[in-house]
Amino acid sequence: MIKVTIWNENRHEQKNPDVQEIYPDGIHQALASFLKEDFEVKTATLDEPEHGLTEEVLSETDVLVWWGHLAHDEVSDEIVERVKNRVLDGMGFIPLHSAHGSKIFHVLMGTRTGELKWREADDKERIWIVDESHPIADGLPEMIEIEKEEMYGERFGIPQPEELIFISWFSGGEVFRSGCTYKRGKGKIFYFRPGHETYPTYYQKEIQKVISNAVKWAAPNKKSPEIKLGNVEPLEVIK
Amino acid sequence: MIKVTIWNENRHEQKNPDVQEIYPDGIHQALASFLKEDFEVKTATLDEPEHGLTEEVLSETDVLVWWGHLAHDEVSDEIVERVKNRVLDGMGFIPLHSAHGSKIFHVLMGTRTGELKWREADDKERIWIVDESHPIADGLPEMIEIEKEEMYGERFGIPQPEELIFISWFSGGEVFRSGCTYKRGKGKIFYFRPGHETYPTYYQKEIQKVISNAVKWAAPNKKSPEIKLGNVEPLEVIK
Amino acid sequence: MIKVTIWNENRHEQKNPDVQEIYPDGIHQALASFLKEDFEVKTATLDEPEHGLTEEVLSETDVLVWWGHLAHDEVSDEIVERVKNRVLDGMGFIPLHSAHGSKIFHVLMGTRTGELKWREADDKERIWIVDESHPIADGLPEMIEIEKEEMYGERFGIPQPEELIFISWFSGGEVFRSGCTYKRGKGKIFYFRPGHETYPTYYQKEIQKVISNAVKWAAPNKKSPEIKLGNVEPLEVIK
Amino acid sequence: MIKVTIWNENRHEQKNPDVQEIYPDGIHQALASFLKEDFEVKTATLDEPEHGLTEEVLSETDVLVWWGHLAHDEVSDEIVERVKNRVLDGMGFIPLHSAHGSKIFHVLMGTRTGELKWREADDKERIWIVDESHPIADGLPEMIEIEKEEMYGERFGIPQPEELIFISWFSGGEVFRSGCTYKRGKGKIFYFRPGHETYPTYYQKEIQKVISNAVKWAAPNKKSPEIKLGNVEPLEVIK
Repeated sequence: MIKVTIWNENRHEQKNPDVQEIYPDGIHQALASFLKEDFEVKTATLDEPEHGLTEEVLSETDVLVWWGHLAHDEVSDEIVERVKNRVLDGMGFIPLHSAHGSKIFHVLMGTRTGELKWREADDKERIWIVDESHPIADGLPEMIEIEKEEMYGERFGIPQPEELIFISWFSGGEVFRSGCTYKRGKGKIFYFRPGHETYPTYYQKEIQKVISNAVKWAAPNKKSPEIKLGNVEPLEVIK
Repeated sequence: MIKVTIWNENRHEQKNPDVQEIYPDGIHQALASFLKEDFEVKTATLDEPEHGLTEEVLSETDVLVWWGHLAHDEVSDEIVERVKNRVLDGMGFIPLHSAHGSKIFHVLMGTRTGELKWREADDKERIWIVDESHPIADGLPEMIEIEKEEMYGERFGIPQPEELIFISWFSGGEVFRSGCTYKRGKGKIFYFRPGHETYPTYYQKEIQKVISNAVKWAAPNKKSPEIKLGNVEPLEVIK
Repeated sequence: MIKVTIWNENRHEQKNPDVQEIYPDGIHQALASFLKEDFEVKTATLDEPEHGLTEEVLSETDVLVWWGHLAHDEVSDEIVERVKNRVLDGMGFIPLHSAHGSKIFHVLMGTRTGELKWREADDKERIWIVDESHPIADGLPEMIEIEKEEMYGERFGIPQPEELIFISWFSGGEVFRSGCTYKRGKGKIFYFRPGHETYPTYYQKEIQKVISNAVKWAAPNKKSPEIKLGNVEPLEVIK
Repeated sequence: MIKVTIWNENRHEQKNPDVQEIYPDGIHQALASFLKEDFEVKTATLDEPEHGLTEEVLSETDVLVWWGHLAHDEVSDEIVERVKNRVLDGMGFIPLHSAHGSKIFHVLMGTRTGELKWREADDKERIWIVDESHPIADGLPEMIEIEKEEMYGERFGIPQPEELIFISWFSGGEVFRSGCTYKRGKGKIFYFRPGHETYPTYYQKEIQKVISNAVKWAAPNKKSPEIKLGNVEPLEVIK
């Protein structure tokens, strides 16, 4: 069974009554509630020791889901390096929504992933599927409508996605590359846009289906090849 | 100087007074009027012998721009094969708007490129740049607004673009991958969405800039390597 | 359980005693012998009615494996069109070795996929993994050595692979993109190089592992979105 | 005229008489000698103040060529950050050979780009073109043979290239993705493998042609769109 760790900053939920009302147990528990139907799920939050991401926890994690926003800077560089190494060694990584601005997404992408347009104004969002063949699109309708969401608009500061699965339309006039895959080392990465803390987006069934599909897709291979790096002897006799 | 041939079906212009008023000399001449500022330009149309695309014309063409709609089926398979071969041999190819449904785009892509949503209802279109680094985006604003256009919506039946440069937003609620590059053989291909016959889109400066940039980008290399195909002798003595 | 149909031209096996000795029941049976451990397997061959690929057979096929060489031209255009449509509708497709020159691979790629260098001279082949994260690489060593094989060399006339998983080294001095993925419509495609009829390549465990992994990867999504194409009403009221 | 800055660590040349003999004025001057035929060229080296890469120098650089090996760790993090920012703002970047292990390539790729196989044993290298359509392949033969070079072998720790132009064959049995393009922000990046300090590789005409082509390709767009980031007003009235 795939082992998922859901990491949440868990700060809005402590400060903002509106967020508390929507996510009384934190966004991580809302995510856990549906992911645990199919996977073995743990949670971890910023204010735990080592942000809850000890070497042991990470070594037991197949896929790490990440939600952060207010406190990207409080995530220690050491833990960022640790997470990066686990991704390169095969752990799947699923940054959600404002995690586009997290340190760990920055270092894995190499670009200014924090850069985008945004607006908190109850925009309607329509998430259109552009790659039907992708396992992450399995079982979805052709378009997911979210009644009200924060708007994210292009130009989004990411490298060209290896696969672009979703594009969002916003009522205020913008578009956004909302579902993007990357591979870094042995790790698979899926960025998924929706999920502002003041909207009940993670209770929407289609959104849950995307995240659940993404966990399956991002799970590491069972057995990676052992690769000999560095100085090697020739395999052929060089004339 | 890059040699451009603009191919136009040129049927709407003969039949529909509204189109005649907008493009009195045909869409091909509207395209020629700005492309000839930078390139050596010829035009060709469906009803000319061999659709104006003789072996000689194609052999003297660096980049072929293509507009067609009503009469995709009247383009002969022989000419389609001839154009395909020239693309694979290095000629750039720029299908515009409804040319997504042309035979030649179908055979180069291998998919049902005719498949998309559409609506003629004076939608507003916003074309957002998602790849600023691309030469085709040079000198553009971050977004091109077209007051009224036909809507094209996803899911568009293309293979994943090698580079996605533009995404369109439509006021009716849809999105579209509007600027897509591909390479086939030695030929570079750029599909660009706008340009319905009943709107004066090709007179808009930013649209002209995109097409002009695309011609430069799609021009073939000066000197391709000579490649030995088929049965070859070993370069090394096999033990 | 994934339903696999293995298609084989099955002509070398009828004519050439050397091939008969290696593959006495045909290449299709050699492939079936290991695929049936994990999948529901059927076979089909060129000389059966409709080449064994009736509408019924294809509609019951999740993944089609294809081996052909001598008689690409004898495959009827009607069946090619039928297979293409099934791929675009979601059937996985795995062309092996000389199937690079098949009609069906040509029409799905849009290029001259028959173009490459080749040599039958007992070259040694080493297939190096360049994408460890890919499910098709699961459980493999970092390199697969084949003692003797036909050589295929670049430049191979394919579009740039969406994912490049393997690169081959040949003792005679050439390289080749040996494991390439594409998506066309809802269908996933994996081209895999090895398997010349005069060598016992398909009995090699690592080669079997690649093909078996590829079948799992290429299997269609359980439930694709229903997509409304063509003329659509606006989702928003257009001002 | 495109402005090129060639950065060289310039340490081997100070220490190793064999290298001195091949590159008496340093690798940077060998590169400059042919690049200055087409471009405006400056050089910079590790031991200059700010490694020769002041804000002013970088702001006047269209394309930065980078050679480093022994002293990757001595490049200051501040300069790495500065170079990274210039790349994201549009400067082209061409890391050569052992620059795969440089800090700047690491941070732009997000992976362990230092990871590969290597051997100094006078391997023969053949660099095969796999993308003829690419401007970087213009005017080349189908294969570049280097009589003796250091071997680099897969698995190379890079993200999947956006375009793969060259694959190397080595006489000792390995292959390598030798010519890889990426885009990061507005900047274009081309990694090119050859050029070990103890071989006269940069005097070879075809190698010079590749680097010269790459400079042209990597030069920034003349005028990038001004992009409004952050909090934006809606373009449409939200109901």
